[in-house]
Amino acid sequence: MSETKKTNIILFSGDYDKAMAAYIIANGAAAYDHEVTIFHTFWGLNALRKDEPIQLKKNFLEKMFGRMMPRGVNKMGISKMNFAGFGPKMIKDVMKKHNVMPLPDLIDMAEEQDVNLVACTMTMDLLGLQKEELMDDIQYAGVAAYLADAEDGAVNLFI
Amino acid sequence: MSETKKTNIILFSGDYDKAMAAYIIANGAAAYDHEVTIFHTFWGLNALRKDEPIQLKKNFLEKMFGRMMPRGVNKMGISKMNFAGFGPKMIKDVMKKHNVMPLPDLIDMAEEQDVNLVACTMTMDLLGLQKEELMDDIQYAGVAAYLADAEDGAVNLFI
Amino acid sequence: MSETKKTNIILFSGDYDKAMAAYIIANGAAAYDHEVTIFHTFWGLNALRKDEPIQLKKNFLEKMFGRMMPRGVNKMGISKMNFAGFGPKMIKDVMKKHNVMPLPDLIDMAEEQDVNLVACTMTMDLLGLQKEELMDDIQYAGVAAYLADAEDGAVNLFI
Repeated sequence: MSETKKTNIILFSGDYDKAMAAYIIANGAAAYDHEVTIFHTFWGLNALRKDEPIQLKKNFLEKMFGRMMPRGVNKMGISKMNFAGFGPKMIKDVMKKHNVMPLPDLIDMAEEQDVNLVACTMTMDLLGLQKEELMDDIQYAGVAAYLADAEDGAVNLFI
Repeated sequence: MSETKKTNIILFSGDYDKAMAAYIIANGAAAYDHEVTIFHTFWGLNALRKDEPIQLKKNFLEKMFGRMMPRGVNKMGISKMNFAGFGPKMIKDVMKKHNVMPLPDLIDMAEEQDVNLVACTMTMDLLGLQKEELMDDIQYAGVAAYLADAEDGAVNLFI
Repeated sequence: MSETKKTNIILFSGDYDKAMAAYIIANGAAAYDHEVTIFHTFWGLNALRKDEPIQLKKNFLEKMFGRMMPRGVNKMGISKMNFAGFGPKMIKDVMKKHNVMPLPDLIDMAEEQDVNLVACTMTMDLLGLQKEELMDDIQYAGVAAYLADAEDGAVNLFI
């Protein structure tokens, strides 16, 4: 039995505020010397998308999903009080004022702290997302790999 | 102490995509030889509703809830990009194309794998749902039974 | 190693029904002799707000957030079928009829059972909430304190 405690977070949500919560907990747990994994599934995959559009062959439905979903964290909405996109701007203004790290910086920090960023291959397939559209240096896995980590997890969360 | 690991999922959400996530994890954990329980509470109870309307004596408020809530998984919306019901159809089309199991099949598989499907009696009462309206062969319990399972759980999630 | 099991709930959501679920589980776990903590972060902080407006010096953005967010649990919406505020009233009517405790009573009961009610200081800062606006006798902490509890938790949930 390993001495290192594990924190495993499933990020299902595509909301900016929920992704922030996931990455704040992940960075905290990494600072606590946990082995930390964020398993991005469904709309949570959008947190891993590159900002720029990538040219790829896709069918009609995949193109529609690709266009409707936010490209990268800066386009994500918030779960409450979105007000046609006004909410995220307000939150970001307040964050800047209070020196709270915005989401892209939290993701950078997670990478520096060796948090495992995993993209769920089943939902990538489902939403027509391809590896070229996601950040480099991330891992790819399915539910079996998640469970192998989670069954020994000290902290398991679904966000 | 038993050697069998336990996975306990509270399904609170009535969203099609979140219910899918719950049942995909549950089926994965059952394949991993976990003892798996999905505790359906609040809007998550809708995943256990029979498709057809059942004639029962209900008061006015119970009738209203009954009518407004989706009857069975095929009527559930998705948590993002619902677009007046267009979203779930798109998701289902893409799932078919990629051979991903739709939710009713995931529920069938869970039953075949002996996943414990539990309906929360307190919220059934609250929403005016009666046993006749829910799937056969499910279990009925409250928060105490959930906690008895969860306190020994290897993986506990709230979805 | 302590014999007392721990239940740690992160309440992120500001929805009345999700807050109810959090407090029902917390009260159940406390009755089960768990050491229970609810860590209120982001919109979940609204569950701890006093009903009456408190006069405080705030800047423009803090005032806007303060006004837009519900002041106390009785102003919170529900996560599904909100119908312009009609939903929460219906739920409360049904709860009364079925003798289900409304949220303020669930919170009182949690306090009586010594559930630790914690407000996340980082998001208080972010949303411009001050201690004077929140309930008395609660605790204040950050993500490090949450993780110290959660890494030994028997039941950890994100709601």
